[in-house]
Amino acid sequence: MSERITVYEVGPRDGLQNEPAVVPTGVKLAFIEHLVAAGYTDIEVTSFVRPRWIPQLADASELVRRLEPVDGVTYWGLVPNQVGLERALDSGMEAIATFMSVSEAHNRKNVNRSVAESRSALIEVVSTAAAEGLRVRAYLSTVFGCPYEGEVDVSRAVDLAASFLDAGACQIALGDTVGLGNPGQINHVLGAMKTGGVPLDRVGLHLHDTRGTALANVLAGIQAGVRTFDAATAGLGGCPYAPGATGNLASEDLLYMLEGMGYTSGIDLDAACEAGAWIAGVLGHALPGRMHRAYLARRAGHTARSA
Amino acid sequence: MSERITVYEVGPRDGLQNEPAVVPTGVKLAFIEHLVAAGYTDIEVTSFVRPRWIPQLADASELVRRLEPVDGVTYWGLVPNQVGLERALDSGMEAIATFMSVSEAHNRKNVNRSVAESRSALIEVVSTAAAEGLRVRAYLSTVFGCPYEGEVDVSRAVDLAASFLDAGACQIALGDTVGLGNPGQINHVLGAMKTGGVPLDRVGLHLHDTRGTALANVLAGIQAGVRTFDAATAGLGGCPYAPGATGNLASEDLLYMLEGMGYTSGIDLDAACEAGAWIAGVLGHALPGRMHRAYLARRAGHTARSA
Repeated sequence: MSERITVYEVGPRDGLQNEPAVVPTGVKLAFIEHLVAAGYTDIEVTSFVRPRWIPQLADASELVRRLEPVDGVTYWGLVPNQVGLERALDSGMEAIATFMSVSEAHNRKNVNRSVAESRSALIEVVSTAAAEGLRVRAYLSTVFGCPYEGEVDVSRAVDLAASFLDAGACQIALGDTVGLGNPGQINHVLGAMKTGGVPLDRVGLHLHDTRGTALANVLAGIQAGVRTFDAATAGLGGCPYAPGATGNLASEDLLYMLEGMGYTSGIDLDAACEAGAWIAGVLGHALPGRMHRAYLARRAGHTARSA
Repeated sequence: MSERITVYEVGPRDGLQNEPAVVPTGVKLAFIEHLVAAGYTDIEVTSFVRPRWIPQLADASELVRRLEPVDGVTYWGLVPNQVGLERALDSGMEAIATFMSVSEAHNRKNVNRSVAESRSALIEVVSTAAAEGLRVRAYLSTVFGCPYEGEVDVSRAVDLAASFLDAGACQIALGDTVGLGNPGQINHVLGAMKTGGVPLDRVGLHLHDTRGTALANVLAGIQAGVRTFDAATAGLGGCPYAPGATGNLASEDLLYMLEGMGYTSGIDLDAACEAGAWIAGVLGHALPGRMHRAYLARRAGHTARSA
């Protein structure tokens, strides 16, 4: 039996959240059904941020109520604070993810709080959620570099990770939020986590492909012992300010590599590609995933490049 | 001092060869000047294939005659056969690259010869060129998978590599021609090369990013001991049948990762990005490189994505 790697699919939340036009709830639900049919076991479906922050996610409660429960599938909801947690609990979520940045400037810009303020507020969110029996994931953003501050203090990331695990989180997702990381750094940060008492089987990597390094960073993560990787179907969630620029690692690219290396994800690559083709068709614009594009080209009957 | 890795730039040849409109010789020369200014030491500038095969490269002799010699810079010309070699010698080339596929079907489709026929013809090309004092590189295509035959016999690739080294080639470039490879396979093939008597400091990797795996494959190559990697500025050379689909690994993506990992290439990343921005502007259409797009977005003054 080959070793298992979990692909944590963030397309419905992190991906669609960046779409310029609001996506109808029915489309989101159909997209999630495609993902479940392909074999995804962990899907981040929405976010309980204040609706006026991100109108795209204003239907969070309705969407969660209409989700089809499926054995072996965990639907995750993003929760920024205690109010969001209450909404997630009211909607019947069984798994939540909360988030903060490791760098002051990015955290301030993103949630208008200092790192210390976010830390104590989220430790309460994590403990409350864990006490309610929810599975809890804690994202640490900008671990591999901050767009405002540059390099980020790794010991601070280790401290935050350890604190959230202590508070009851089942997993820490380390985010390369703007795609600045490289494999050497992945190694360095994961080594520091391990030394600092954060077991790597409790760590996930949330990598962005902004500079093309995401899959190389995944490889470094696998080699270090990480077994959970985030990705978005077809690379959904590209930077809204730069058409064609890439954000999230594309799920199909990740799946193609994992399958080739003999890892098991439980996800069918062709069905995952079909899910990507479907959502691209519905959204009506090109998505950046490489395997996604190769699949569309193959489906359109183009021959493989042979020069 | 950090370890050196050579980036072998194929944009002017492998990249521009796939452009739908013929690029004027003066533009090619200006592009090459940009690359030299950025610090590239090895540039594949053209191909001496029969002009009617690829009209884009019909100006090979004229282009080479108009190249500015620069200390420390090697201009490479692709040569398919003895006739091409004669043209390359007449033009004053000092370094050539020749090529064949490891799989029968792809070699037949590409150059209308069997593998055995190509092998003996190219051994003659390599010996003649080496006897003339030229540096010779031998490409082996489809080493990591063939679009027609699927898996490819590794021992056949090892045999061909060893034969070309014996004949006087200074380097073997192993090609993942349609981007099918994964890091596990890179490891496997490089291990077989080493065991088969092909030293990895004589091996380069020519990786395509069709399914997003190129940089992860580079990482596996570095770990195995390879120190030369091919790339095309901005990912030039995307599949002509699938707009936006990707072909060559983008040089800027490779340079970003190498720099982050502390390797020295001698190439200035910003200047390399400027060269990419320049050629994209001249060609007038979007190019797929990720770092290239992030650079264009930054240059246009867009803020980094922070969500």
